[in-house]
Amino acid sequence: MTVPYQPARLRQFLAELTRLVNDTAEEAPLLARGRPLLADLVRHDDWLAEPYTLPSPVRYQQYLLYADPLERFSVVSFVWGPGQQTPIHNHTVWGLIGMLRGAEISEPFVRTAEGWRAGGPSHRLRPGMVEAVSPTLGDVHRVSNALADQVSISIHVYGANIGAVRRSVFLADGTEKPFISGYSNATLPNVWDRSQETSAAA
Amino acid sequence: MTVPYQPARLRQFLAELTRLVNDTAEEAPLLARGRPLLADLVRHDDWLAEPYTLPSPVRYQQYLLYADPLERFSVVSFVWGPGQQTPIHNHTVWGLIGMLRGAEISEPFVRTAEGWRAGGPSHRLRPGMVEAVSPTLGDVHRVSNALADQVSISIHVYGANIGAVRRSVFLADGTEKPFISGYSNATLPNVWDRSQETSAAA
Ligand SMILES: [Fe+3]
Ligand SMILES: [Fe+3]
Ligand SMILES: [Mg+2]
Repeated sequence: MTVPYQPARLRQFLAELTRLVNDTAEEAPLLARGRPLLADLVRHDDWLAEPYTLPSPVRYQQYLLYADPLERFSVVSFVWGPGQQTPIHNHTVWGLIGMLRGAEISEPFVRTAEGWRAGGPSHRLRPGMVEAVSPTLGDVHRVSNALADQVSISIHVYGANIGAVRRSVFLADGTEKPFISGYSNATLPNVWDRSQETSAAA
Repeated sequence: MTVPYQPARLRQFLAELTRLVNDTAEEAPLLARGRPLLADLVRHDDWLAEPYTLPSPVRYQQYLLYADPLERFSVVSFVWGPGQQTPIHNHTVWGLIGMLRGAEISEPFVRTAEGWRAGGPSHRLRPGMVEAVSPTLGDVHRVSNALADQVSISIHVYGANIGAVRRSVFLADGTEKPFISGYSNATLPNVWDRSQETSAAA
């Protein structure tokens, strides 16, 4: 990282999300109030520690950054290597996707009698942009790294511990396959050590 | 670890503590309801991942396991090498100490005109035991590994993000030195991946 590391941004984001889920369990206000919080977070690219930015040559990485103990939300860093993409999949819970670095393409899908078909225009997300998914708004999409030669990173917030949610991948012929995504990482960033900044502020 | 790793115990403990701090901010019910939760956690020694059990030859280690984003509580693994001890110190917030492995000695102190003196009998904590500290109950103590040849581990819960709290170390002559403990670890255990156990339960 070439700029000073600012873990306080993630810490403040987690505090604000915790206040938000303490206030309401309804999707509409969660998305309405969560969206500007995530937009603020991804406006800067100086707070994500390096282990959570590393691509794998094998598949896109899903690094958990934080899970609410009551599983009301989770925050995940998705890291796309060049050319990587998800299968067509759903979420079953609300989600907010904020672009941090690079660019990704999200393609919405809808079910037809013949299988899954494009359900609207695909979106190109650039750094600072935020989009929402949910069973209410449209829950099925395929996401790809828009860049053939660079890593892209997006920060996802879900209305559950997404690593534990039973959801589905869809094949083009309409076949549905259950999956639980899990996480790529065994350890989470410790953004809670304020001994240096607290001392510095004294 | 020689027994199957059971991260669900820590996950459930964090959920119960989060419900507790959502219910009340008062010390008496927090300690009364927190104590049996911690006693349940330290009744088993199969849930703490190895990186958070490792002693340092230089000093006792304070591994953060979890911090509440609203800084209403934190959970820390204290790992004592043979012969290691803290200085005389306070906390300024409520704390619960649950013994997981080995044994430790806690010596209470009180201030006198001449400096700090033993403020009551010292306690020997054995696995499964829990004790409380707070400005109300008695906040100043010195803690030592009771074992000269083994590592001891206790699990501490504090009513704040303890790594950020301005508190004090006391010298025998009564001198007070401010300190902020910080944490020994840059990464926290990810106990939130339930993809295996969720699948296994299907
Ligand atoms: Fe998705
Ligand atoms: Fe202490
Ligand atoms: Mg509440």
